[in-house]
Amino acid sequence: MRIANLRATPVAIGDPPLRSAFGLHAPFALRTIVEVELDDGNVGIGETYGGEAPLRALERARPAVVGRDPWQLTPLRIELERLDGNRPAGFAWESRALAGPALFSAIEVACLDAIGRASGRPVADLLGGRVRDRVPFAAYLFFKHAGDDAWGEVMTPEAVVGEARTMRDRYGFHSVKLKGGVLEPDREAEAILMLREALGPDVPLRLDPNAAWSVPTSLRIAERLRGALEYLEDPTPGIDGMSEVAKRAVGVILTDHHMWGGMRATVELGRLCRTFGLGVSMHSNSHLGISLAAMVHVAAAIPELTYACDTHYPWQTDEVIKGGKLRIEDGSVAVPIGPGLGVDLDREALGRLNEQYRRAGLALRDDVAEMHKIDPAWRPHKGDW
Amino acid sequence: MRIANLRATPVAIGDPPLRSAFGLHAPFALRTIVEVELDDGNVGIGETYGGEAPLRALERARPAVVGRDPWQLTPLRIELERLDGNRPAGFAWESRALAGPALFSAIEVACLDAIGRASGRPVADLLGGRVRDRVPFAAYLFFKHAGDDAWGEVMTPEAVVGEARTMRDRYGFHSVKLKGGVLEPDREAEAILMLREALGPDVPLRLDPNAAWSVPTSLRIAERLRGALEYLEDPTPGIDGMSEVAKRAVGVILTDHHMWGGMRATVELGRLCRTFGLGVSMHSNSHLGISLAAMVHVAAAIPELTYACDTHYPWQTDEVIKGGKLRIEDGSVAVPIGPGLGVDLDREALGRLNEQYRRAGLALRDDVAEMHKIDPAWRPHKGDW
Repeated sequence: MRIANLRATPVAIGDPPLRSAFGLHAPFALRTIVEVELDDGNVGIGETYGGEAPLRALERARPAVVGRDPWQLTPLRIELERLDGNRPAGFAWESRALAGPALFSAIEVACLDAIGRASGRPVADLLGGRVRDRVPFAAYLFFKHAGDDAWGEVMTPEAVVGEARTMRDRYGFHSVKLKGGVLEPDREAEAILMLREALGPDVPLRLDPNAAWSVPTSLRIAERLRGALEYLEDPTPGIDGMSEVAKRAVGVILTDHHMWGGMRATVELGRLCRTFGLGVSMHSNSHLGISLAAMVHVAAAIPELTYACDTHYPWQTDEVIKGGKLRIEDGSVAVPIGPGLGVDLDREALGRLNEQYRRAGLALRDDVAEMHKIDPAWRPHKGDW
Repeated sequence: MRIANLRATPVAIGDPPLRSAFGLHAPFALRTIVEVELDDGNVGIGETYGGEAPLRALERARPAVVGRDPWQLTPLRIELERLDGNRPAGFAWESRALAGPALFSAIEVACLDAIGRASGRPVADLLGGRVRDRVPFAAYLFFKHAGDDAWGEVMTPEAVVGEARTMRDRYGFHSVKLKGGVLEPDREAEAILMLREALGPDVPLRLDPNAAWSVPTSLRIAERLRGALEYLEDPTPGIDGMSEVAKRAVGVILTDHHMWGGMRATVELGRLCRTFGLGVSMHSNSHLGISLAAMVHVAAAIPELTYACDTHYPWQTDEVIKGGKLRIEDGSVAVPIGPGLGVDLDREALGRLNEQYRRAGLALRDDVAEMHKIDPAWRPHKGDW
């Protein structure tokens, strides 16, 4: 069994004007659809970061991939790590996408899908078997501008509560996460307290200011929200700052197979977290159903998953898999039981989203530039709020 | 695909009178041959600790194993960990064999062999693929009594050098390990210095006193052997003592899939060692070819393997696999490329070694009792030498 071809197709998917400490989401989020075609006709699919840089990285990896037995993944990882001499500077997601671990992950997911299809086994089985049949996700709340969507403007604590109610009604989420770093820190604390009041004591709440806060602000808000938060994510930049804050906080690692070096590496990370007594949850970017399926398979195979996973999935309406969007019900996604990732590429949709990519004229994600179109004086907070 | 049956057959295999800090090897070493029979007719094999305790543990695990899909290994691990409430006291190997991780490993190896056979894939591929085609082992030197073997008595530094030469001539080993804790510490240091002189500067040497030494003795001998040793293994008992010594030593983890919780967990351990900058080698007990094949598959899949592996294999003459003993050439074993572990059970040999087990009348390994038959006053050193 050999890899006959490696294909990478850039796509642009509609994205609402969500806010974060980094700025404003552009009208389109960029993703790359990866296909690994075997000489036996099986095609494995994967999904990773978007834009020009991942395309270049995948092209650079091609000689190491084509002709390889798709089971020989660890040797591929080592070869890509060797290639990964110089990482170009640039926006985080794109430079990560060029680096060995993320590049390997993009190819590993597609290879595991192909192997699963060839052997009639779900990917979770290739990771050791599934310890749960459904994977819980958290409602991912955002402050947002009014846009070409049904959500309207959400720039106040009151509006966030409304957004949370809609999310819960539609998807049954049992956990809620708010992307912060947008309003004044105390306003965001108010939003959490209002959510706590509105949703009742049994719904775990998280707040992620994306490292916009200073250490004193982080400690002050953490104290103000004591008892109201399940965890406070990345309040302040850097290991030193975080360790200052962490002395009083729960330790949770947000895994992400896209950047961590693949699905198997993420299962290994779960074991590591267990060794050191850290909680495990899962990180998300804007993504399609292929990534969601991969996230679900990984999460299904990690016994140590202690918190509902993050996902941007409800915010995107575009889809690239057959049958349309995967269903989130009762706040969770069923682990696909078909071979491989258990989802199939809709080539018509792929063509349409690829065309959308070309028309969008975006080569990388740049939330700051998007924000400057509205407010040229806007500057991101990086631990100074 | 379901597991239709789980079989455990105890065997006794001839073992020369090897010495260690724990005492003297009995004329037979005990092992258990594990068979996992699938409903499609494939049978996976594994090998683990011997004696009555592992048999009881495997019997206790039977309801969790039979009827299970052999790919669902992580859920099995979790179920066995739940069973593993009370670990009985007793000699280390046997109490380990009753505990969750070692019990899981015994079954995991046989399941991975069965899965590999069913899918036509070597076990190393199920672990991520092999990063090397041959796995290097170290010559494992022992002080020993004269016995029913061709090696004769080896109780002096001079005799150890002769043993090393024979081992190297026969198997081509490029690394050498001496099991210590037998002679006076300074005599063992002399043995290392004589080996260094006899084998030349390019052969890495290790010494393993099995934690017989005190911290001051460990530091004194380590200083005396500075530059002569690749590493000093377990000189003194306990984490505190080791950390005292380790301040001046190389950090090396000896993996062992039998006790660490399986083959995949051992691959994960390799990644962990890399994260913390620790070296990786592999531990051994007296064992047969099934364990050797499993060790080779695991070692082949661990990029971080930094030292040649240990093996007792040259000391045993009995074998339970078809075709007789696996070949060690140029100090290494080729990774089997057939499906599963790549070795097949010789049922005639299994019956003979099982009969030998029943005749041997040994229920567990007891090197102290064996030593007392010769010297009733002998007591093991436990960090007091």
